[in-house]
Amino acid sequence: MSGWVAVVGLGPGSETLVTPDVTQILAEATDVVGYFPYVARVAERSGLTLHASDNRVEIDRSRHALEMAAEGKRVVVVSSGDPGIFAMAAAVLEAIDHGPPDWRNLDIRILPGITAMLAAAARAGAPLGHDFCAINLSDNLKPWFLIEQRLRLAVRADFAMAFYNPRSKARPEGFARALDILREDCMDDRPVIFGRAISTPDEELRVVPLSQAQPDMADMRTMVIVGSSQTKIITRDGPPLVYTPRSVPV
Amino acid sequence: MSGWVAVVGLGPGSETLVTPDVTQILAEATDVVGYFPYVARVAERSGLTLHASDNRVEIDRSRHALEMAAEGKRVVVVSSGDPGIFAMAAAVLEAIDHGPPDWRNLDIRILPGITAMLAAAARAGAPLGHDFCAINLSDNLKPWFLIEQRLRLAVRADFAMAFYNPRSKARPEGFARALDILREDCMDDRPVIFGRAISTPDEELRVVPLSQAQPDMADMRTMVIVGSSQTKIITRDGPPLVYTPRSVPV
Repeated sequence: MSGWVAVVGLGPGSETLVTPDVTQILAEATDVVGYFPYVARVAERSGLTLHASDNRVEIDRSRHALEMAAEGKRVVVVSSGDPGIFAMAAAVLEAIDHGPPDWRNLDIRILPGITAMLAAAARAGAPLGHDFCAINLSDNLKPWFLIEQRLRLAVRADFAMAFYNPRSKARPEGFARALDILREDCMDDRPVIFGRAISTPDEELRVVPLSQAQPDMADMRTMVIVGSSQTKIITRDGPPLVYTPRSVPV
Repeated sequence: MSGWVAVVGLGPGSETLVTPDVTQILAEATDVVGYFPYVARVAERSGLTLHASDNRVEIDRSRHALEMAAEGKRVVVVSSGDPGIFAMAAAVLEAIDHGPPDWRNLDIRILPGITAMLAAAARAGAPLGHDFCAINLSDNLKPWFLIEQRLRLAVRADFAMAFYNPRSKARPEGFARALDILREDCMDDRPVIFGRAISTPDEELRVVPLSQAQPDMADMRTMVIVGSSQTKIITRDGPPLVYTPRSVPV
């Protein structure tokens, strides 16, 4: 029996957003590894061992998965959202790159999922309907000056922007600083979308103009999407619809 | 009976990448509208009318969907990939924004899907594992100088880049020009991924250094992903694994 590692995305929360590909590969797995709230989403069954671990141990977890695959196990590494977007796929590949040479020829599969940015955008309308960028606002793994530089260049490029990990208890000040940077060059009415825990029972959606955006509107379960200069709001009964038009006038 | 419009993403091609949410809503629809190759992916059944139309009539198609919903029909507008990423969601919202006031209070739902960028990235490894941007290289709906400006700023921000609609028969020169712009400021070995028709029987994946990237490696079914300056390649038996590390050294 040949082992493998599949790095899969469970989507933003709802089981109705998990692809059939991911459901199928979970049914074939002998072992599942991941951050404990994601592993908790996988149903227990005979023949399947669940290995839940804490946050910030992505490389250890990846090595564990690769070791098990080298022993012939069928290992699924679970991420929320999409595994390739600020999630486990890069960690597993880093572990391979810096690991023993025989790991390179293991059977490695990456299975995409609905990343939080797509789920939050869909709930709000189509704010990412034109060119956009995605920035991880956490400075755990990169220097803060690089985040600032990217924010300023993204504003100049007039991208809509999706912010992952906008704010944590350990780093409350970064998102406040990001909003200050946006305010330097964007109009007061630039739409800012706070999509929290989209597709879960805790879902909350809020759309405010930049002038009213406050740091405490975001936490680590929140996706923040900032429109481009062209982004429009359709007011209606109930929550507004936010969209970025496909075209930019010449 | 109240009508509605659901704008849904069918994913990049494989039925195993369609979310259960989308499958369910198609089962509830009375009418499906969309570009003909996407409508062709929906199974015919009694009680369901399929309305296939040509490309570049997105606003007409959107109005048709909204008119039918106003008459009480349950209308699904199908896109490939994700409807909010260079697809039909923005077109439907544009039609609402410029349409009769009563369209604003129609029941509008956007259901996310696996966009081509995520599918191509997953096949190659994790090239979008750090900050990135997505740019539509078609200048049908925006001036070319804006695309050039965004490319230059994206290089300066050191984003990985995903290019949608890189090249069509009608516009063969744009992608060649984009490669030239990248060559001005990126090293020769910057990885360029060509992911064509990922998850379909026509799937092709090619990874080349920027110095070897040629315009005719892309067509309208190709997703092009360009790594950042940090993107790495893991050589192995078979196709290489491409990833952008999560961290940037201080």
